[in-house]
Amino acid sequence: MTLYLNLAELLGARIEQGLYRPGQRLPSVRALSMEHGVSLSTVQQAYRMLEDSGMVSPRPKSGYFVSDHRQLAALPAVSRPAQRPVDISQWEQVLELVRSTPRQDVIQLGRGMPDIDSPTLKPLLRSLAQLSRRQDMPGLYYDNIHGNLALREQIARLMLDSGCRLGPADLVVTTGCHEALSCSIRAVCQPGDIVAVDSPSFHGAMQTLKGLGMKALEIPTDPVTGISLEALELALEQWPIKLIQITPSCNNPLGYIMPEPRKKALLSLAQRYDVAILEDDVYGDLAYTYPRPRTVKSFDDDGRVLLCSSFSKTLAPGLRIGWVAPGRYLERVLHMKYISTGSTATQPQLAIADFIAAGHYQPHVRRMRSQYQRGRDLMSDWVTRYFPPGTRVSRPQGGFMLWVELPEHFDTLRLNRALLEQGVQVAVGSIFSASGKFRHCLRMNFAARATPQIEAAVRKVGETAHGLLDEALIPA
Amino acid sequence: MTLYLNLAELLGARIEQGLYRPGQRLPSVRALSMEHGVSLSTVQQAYRMLEDSGMVSPRPKSGYFVSDHRQLAALPAVSRPAQRPVDISQWEQVLELVRSTPRQDVIQLGRGMPDIDSPTLKPLLRSLAQLSRRQDMPGLYYDNIHGNLALREQIARLMLDSGCRLGPADLVVTTGCHEALSCSIRAVCQPGDIVAVDSPSFHGAMQTLKGLGMKALEIPTDPVTGISLEALELALEQWPIKLIQITPSCNNPLGYIMPEPRKKALLSLAQRYDVAILEDDVYGDLAYTYPRPRTVKSFDDDGRVLLCSSFSKTLAPGLRIGWVAPGRYLERVLHMKYISTGSTATQPQLAIADFIAAGHYQPHVRRMRSQYQRGRDLMSDWVTRYFPPGTRVSRPQGGFMLWVELPEHFDTLRLNRALLEQGVQVAVGSIFSASGKFRHCLRMNFAARATPQIEAAVRKVGETAHGLLDEALIPA
Repeated sequence: MTLYLNLAELLGARIEQGLYRPGQRLPSVRALSMEHGVSLSTVQQAYRMLEDSGMVSPRPKSGYFVSDHRQLAALPAVSRPAQRPVDISQWEQVLELVRSTPRQDVIQLGRGMPDIDSPTLKPLLRSLAQLSRRQDMPGLYYDNIHGNLALREQIARLMLDSGCRLGPADLVVTTGCHEALSCSIRAVCQPGDIVAVDSPSFHGAMQTLKGLGMKALEIPTDPVTGISLEALELALEQWPIKLIQITPSCNNPLGYIMPEPRKKALLSLAQRYDVAILEDDVYGDLAYTYPRPRTVKSFDDDGRVLLCSSFSKTLAPGLRIGWVAPGRYLERVLHMKYISTGSTATQPQLAIADFIAAGHYQPHVRRMRSQYQRGRDLMSDWVTRYFPPGTRVSRPQGGFMLWVELPEHFDTLRLNRALLEQGVQVAVGSIFSASGKFRHCLRMNFAARATPQIEAAVRKVGETAHGLLDEALIPA
Repeated sequence: MTLYLNLAELLGARIEQGLYRPGQRLPSVRALSMEHGVSLSTVQQAYRMLEDSGMVSPRPKSGYFVSDHRQLAALPAVSRPAQRPVDISQWEQVLELVRSTPRQDVIQLGRGMPDIDSPTLKPLLRSLAQLSRRQDMPGLYYDNIHGNLALREQIARLMLDSGCRLGPADLVVTTGCHEALSCSIRAVCQPGDIVAVDSPSFHGAMQTLKGLGMKALEIPTDPVTGISLEALELALEQWPIKLIQITPSCNNPLGYIMPEPRKKALLSLAQRYDVAILEDDVYGDLAYTYPRPRTVKSFDDDGRVLLCSSFSKTLAPGLRIGWVAPGRYLERVLHMKYISTGSTATQPQLAIADFIAAGHYQPHVRRMRSQYQRGRDLMSDWVTRYFPPGTRVSRPQGGFMLWVELPEHFDTLRLNRALLEQGVQVAVGSIFSASGKFRHCLRMNFAARATPQIEAAVRKVGETAHGLLDEALIPA
């Protein structure tokens, strides 16, 4: 499993060190196979991985070349979190982020908002409007606690792309992915239980653990391959972990897609230690490559994976429609769903079911995928250009979030305060850690179509960071 | 405080015993004042209470008369629940109720559905449709975690009617009242804590306690005046109660409005024993008398009352818009709201804010109130006519639910099973108790405009109950 990863890492390092320059041809598959004593397919896998991360591009019949459209900044370091379960802090910072109402005078690069201005969303709005005009007003009733059947059928169809074979009865519709996550965590864990999480990790899930009285054990995570299985296994040996909570496809905030063999290995680990897996797949359909990556859930044969997702990133967050495929925890999740919100709002469920059934979902997501990929390239370039030297940047393989790592003692809370006066906000890194690590990191959103205003905002972030670094160098 | 209650009870008993017959004139205020040695205003209060419960009617310049439009069945007995905190059961029965999708062939008398066919709701649907047609699509964004500001302003205005002086910053919009309840309970209690509840009590709140690992202590409750303060005080002395959870205005399922002096006395008790009060006011605006009753919250001067409500009963449940005024627990409730659903759906919030601001709320609620009052009278008559003799019936003073008490060993679970074949369903009484009491009781919904079909359905319930009782009398 690790052969191709090692090779990909080695090649990646050589490119970053400048051994191969942008636009140059890389060694052939055959040559590398002989040099490293590995099979041709191992080399191909390594190249495919580098291709996914944007470092190399294939040219038909000529082999692989170093991508020349931009100079890639170094990747963020593998995280080294505390090696014990901790109580979760950082609610104040999260609250600051989510309390904000969209303001005309602030460019908000911090929140997880998709672009909702696409004309491909129009049919969804039409359908919402039509539902409101119907005489029998179906959108005003309570729906079944499982969620609307037509919608569950459509979700089951969409999930085939991620390798999941599920029926509508295996699904529970929720009020956004947030509710899917909190019902799942509560279905599996009791207060005081330990949950292993990737690191950095989505602040919403982290705050859910906090609110429910659980402890988080942050596991070192690689910015390309995801959670370290070696570190996870050590943790499983050492601690009575009840649940592993991860976002393996188009991770938030790092953007990686965990390679399929590692997803399988993760599941085996969970089976060996008999723990449940909460798989957050909310960005999964926004992978830049098609077909989209498989979910861990798709390999699950004993119902231990609770797959959570929503339409908040693919369609629109204001609809608050998510779902969970809770496997063996279905009955518990239903109870948690019932006490959490009773049932899910009816009208947006009906509208989304119509939208998918009429064939509008795939074209919309296809369009957003390529827009987001272009957004990633642009924003990565801007960071390379405007941020202090030594800044490290993630290479997202899906979604619309960039993770930026500044020098070690940098304080992004201070940065954000200085930025507010200039009408820009980012998400500070510390909210992505249970223990407030990643203070020197930040997350920026590149969902919106690029404009000079957004470039200017990113430039402000970079220049303000520069300024704060320079200040720190002046002796008091 | 209790003088007028005692007098009202005495007069009520005399009417029920047949001492005064329907249509007969009752003793004058002056005569009763002299007979019982109480003030004139005490007698007037007692008469007003009997009037509210539909037992007497005033005639201008002639005094009070026994209501003659119908024969009133006896009221349900005061509940006598277990005198210790219990773990909550009954999830299977609740699930059976909420799992059901509306079916053409079943008349569902069991669920808490308001009538949503009123033309006074049309502007709300128009507003939803208009929002969907707007180019800037405001309904697709995440909203502020507190909820939409315009809506919170309108809710604060509406709450003035219940005596509450609150600003938008005191409110958190939620996904229905369910979320308001569960966030409130979690903000105050830890798993294992004891919560005092009225008895019978709303199954949703009960299941929330169950799901969160709390114990319920059911307090004897009078079908006219609500939770027994004497029993509650004994319980507060005996157990470390953290929270009192009640529905004092237009109670679900009993329909009573707790008299104002008792609401004040309840608050004093809570202050004396330093416990929080969760006040579910979801039916409060549907009181048959106007102005609507005051909330316990309106007397609260130290922020210990968490007032929960929603538009699910007044407008439409499918919108899933509720709110909470959490007093001193605001920050905790915000955290719980964040982890529960992230934020509340935007479009229905905007549509409801428009609906209220344009002046459509009060006329709609006024219309529904009188429709529901007529529904209560009709359904009470049908029960008196079709149910076995000795059946006791609640006298709701608001809302659209009737509580029916059959002879003590009757089993409404069996009744409901027999009814399913006949295309009728009711809510079985046991779900309104933590310990599965009230098996001989049932709840029926009279929200829909009366039709021969509904009368036939109620008749089926009554006749099936007759049949089961007769069976029980035949020796095996």
